[in-house]
Amino acid sequence: MQKILIFGAGKSSTYLIEYLLNSAIDKKRQVIVADIQLENAQQKVKDHPAGKAIEVAIDHEKSRRKFIAEADLIVSMLPAFMHPIIAKDCLDLGKHFFTASYESEELRAMKADIESNNLLFLNECGLDPGIDHMSAMKIIDDEKKKGHKIVAFKSFTGGVLAPESEDNPWKYKFTWNPRNVVLAGQGMSRFIRNGKYKYVPYHMLFRRLEKIHFEEVGEFEGYPNRDSLTYRTVYGLENIPTLLRGTLRRAGFCRSWDVFVQLGMTNDTFEMDLPEGFTYREFINTFLPYHESNQVEEKIKDLLPWVNEEILDKIKWLGLLDNKPMTKTKGSPASLLQDLLEVKWALKPEDKDMIVMQHLFDVETPSGIKTITSSLVCKGEDQIYTAMAKTVGLPLAITIDLFLDGLIQATGLKLPISSDFYEPILQKLKEEGIVFKETSELKKA
Amino acid sequence: MQKILIFGAGKSSTYLIEYLLNSAIDKKRQVIVADIQLENAQQKVKDHPAGKAIEVAIDHEKSRRKFIAEADLIVSMLPAFMHPIIAKDCLDLGKHFFTASYESEELRAMKADIESNNLLFLNECGLDPGIDHMSAMKIIDDEKKKGHKIVAFKSFTGGVLAPESEDNPWKYKFTWNPRNVVLAGQGMSRFIRNGKYKYVPYHMLFRRLEKIHFEEVGEFEGYPNRDSLTYRTVYGLENIPTLLRGTLRRAGFCRSWDVFVQLGMTNDTFEMDLPEGFTYREFINTFLPYHESNQVEEKIKDLLPWVNEEILDKIKWLGLLDNKPMTKTKGSPASLLQDLLEVKWALKPEDKDMIVMQHLFDVETPSGIKTITSSLVCKGEDQIYTAMAKTVGLPLAITIDLFLDGLIQATGLKLPISSDFYEPILQKLKEEGIVFKETSELKKA
Repeated sequence: MQKILIFGAGKSSTYLIEYLLNSAIDKKRQVIVADIQLENAQQKVKDHPAGKAIEVAIDHEKSRRKFIAEADLIVSMLPAFMHPIIAKDCLDLGKHFFTASYESEELRAMKADIESNNLLFLNECGLDPGIDHMSAMKIIDDEKKKGHKIVAFKSFTGGVLAPESEDNPWKYKFTWNPRNVVLAGQGMSRFIRNGKYKYVPYHMLFRRLEKIHFEEVGEFEGYPNRDSLTYRTVYGLENIPTLLRGTLRRAGFCRSWDVFVQLGMTNDTFEMDLPEGFTYREFINTFLPYHESNQVEEKIKDLLPWVNEEILDKIKWLGLLDNKPMTKTKGSPASLLQDLLEVKWALKPEDKDMIVMQHLFDVETPSGIKTITSSLVCKGEDQIYTAMAKTVGLPLAITIDLFLDGLIQATGLKLPISSDFYEPILQKLKEEGIVFKETSELKKA
Repeated sequence: MQKILIFGAGKSSTYLIEYLLNSAIDKKRQVIVADIQLENAQQKVKDHPAGKAIEVAIDHEKSRRKFIAEADLIVSMLPAFMHPIIAKDCLDLGKHFFTASYESEELRAMKADIESNNLLFLNECGLDPGIDHMSAMKIIDDEKKKGHKIVAFKSFTGGVLAPESEDNPWKYKFTWNPRNVVLAGQGMSRFIRNGKYKYVPYHMLFRRLEKIHFEEVGEFEGYPNRDSLTYRTVYGLENIPTLLRGTLRRAGFCRSWDVFVQLGMTNDTFEMDLPEGFTYREFINTFLPYHESNQVEEKIKDLLPWVNEEILDKIKWLGLLDNKPMTKTKGSPASLLQDLLEVKWALKPEDKDMIVMQHLFDVETPSGIKTITSSLVCKGEDQIYTAMAKTVGLPLAITIDLFLDGLIQATGLKLPISSDFYEPILQKLKEEGIVFKETSELKKA
């Protein structure tokens, strides 16, 4: 009996747990789901005969280690800062360890010990990071094998709404952690373009956009996502002249979101303590210059000349021009804005989310520059069975299944960037409907 | 014999030391100047018979405390973070303590002990904070005494160039700590205007300007300076509808400086490590979007539509459009920019700096709203005898003199905001040529 222990029964664990349970009886496995609240774990396990729900408080070392000691392979779907704690236990107790999160410095410090114990510690095996790595590396390795040279690689990913659920003027709702969406892009983003390093400060980010087209679902826009340069080593593209990773939003979103960025309403560095009864209109007005007679609407347009009626309508739709009291009055501007957005941008039970990903390559070939466009569109089913949960959970579930079947045999601290990982995983993802459409074109002879 | 011990023989101590030495023999005092480098202290004391130069390393507790124990009154002109160390010694050894810096939390924690020991610990007794407090409080107290109500108070201060030394297109040079100038305004600034709280993020700061006119020296512009709201308590103006403190620059400066802010070149949160030989033109280009054919100049104008030839000329004058290698290539964008500016904006020996300060009050009187404008213009003599050193050092020197003469008798942890301080100090400052011009006008009946 192989025992899989999954920490965290949150939104993103749904597909992971179901996929592993589906084959568990046949493959003589047990799937143990541990959550800080037993109920959460029970909801995911649904009395499946091969499943088991348990309650574990992560900071309770003794019970945590007891359960780890009894399992063969541990998955952490907990917030990223908790991974090193579980990883350390796994190292001590000789257990394999899997996450969908970025490989951390703490994990890197364990590298030699992981190897000498013949364990597999696999990170970045979700969507982004995860599917992005695997799908990109397949193309990169294929082209390199043909003797071609990758001269440009741009990669964009977005968690958005399926077109049929785009029923508000923003064409956006929260399909993932709201706080991360509100704070997205803070700090300095950097990338390289035609051999030139490019740095983009936060307040410029939402106008440095690239238009991205998907045949099936139309027009999107991508803004640079943090530090693209670190991916040069990961992808073996050390001297590539153009490398950019970006985040996708429906076309038109960024220009409107930029109003909040420009006004300072996404600032998370200081606390506001507004009087009881302070209205949303007063809230936005605190970020606008004083004027004797001009209304909030006019002042926004005066301060930010690109703001048109369409953008103003979006702000109005959120209720930020209403004389209604705020439901939260104490916290950073970002947290006060988030409080409003969580209501306005809430998914309805029947809403479908969507994952869009696109890789754009320029490849030097003997016949000229070939452009390759590889696109993924994955729609969710409803508020529970989201495309986000599917694309984060399935790569991890598939990899665990392949590993326990002996079809992946790697050990050490790994990312799924080599063909022994990505070939079988991408094949299985295809069977689950997660499949990239690839087109290519010869640009110049 | 009264012994005054001054820590720090830097630029801003010049006038302080000279003023105290001038009357030292008559008043039977000794002025001991302590610096980490004996030479610095000697240069300020200039063999004056009532002076003494000593070398002290602040972190050498024993020698530091020995000198403090031998003195009657201690002045710290050291960087602000060192004040609490000296203050603690003064408390232990029963010595009075004076600075021109902001009162810190650490000092506030000593408040009860300072009082019970009958000591005077006086902070914020320089220019800004210092002269600003005293000159404002005199007007505020006078108006309150008349039964009038202050309904608006805006106060602006700037360390700039005297008009005769404005010999570059920026009409600016560093007359104070360059790093502070480059980073000025980062974070969120806030103030209150007509009863409305106003928040201004850094990237909006240099366009939220007020025009400020000085009869003698012309047009300036003021941008909001950090948190104006804390001054409501200090000035006893708790319910004032308009309170704004700002920083002054020569008219036109901010729009040009804003180019660096917008591009991210004043960012101090991450390190760049540019290749040897990287040029200033390439440096500014890293903050601009890629374009196939457009030059840096065109790209600046495309990205920042308000940039005209005049602004571009200022950037060009700094050498940022030159194909010349940078002298420093490793550090934050702000530090790389500062490295260039320190050369271009260096004071020449004969250059004169200038301090400009203006208070603008609206006062409710039985006859209507009275506006009071109180302005200070103080020019330096050269690179050593600067207006900055004079306006920072003289208030402190005068206060020490008055205190040792018994003409100020306060004890406790104090700011110079009550009339027992500001009346005699402002009178003495007037004798030294530091004098406000006040005009007032009845706005409406």
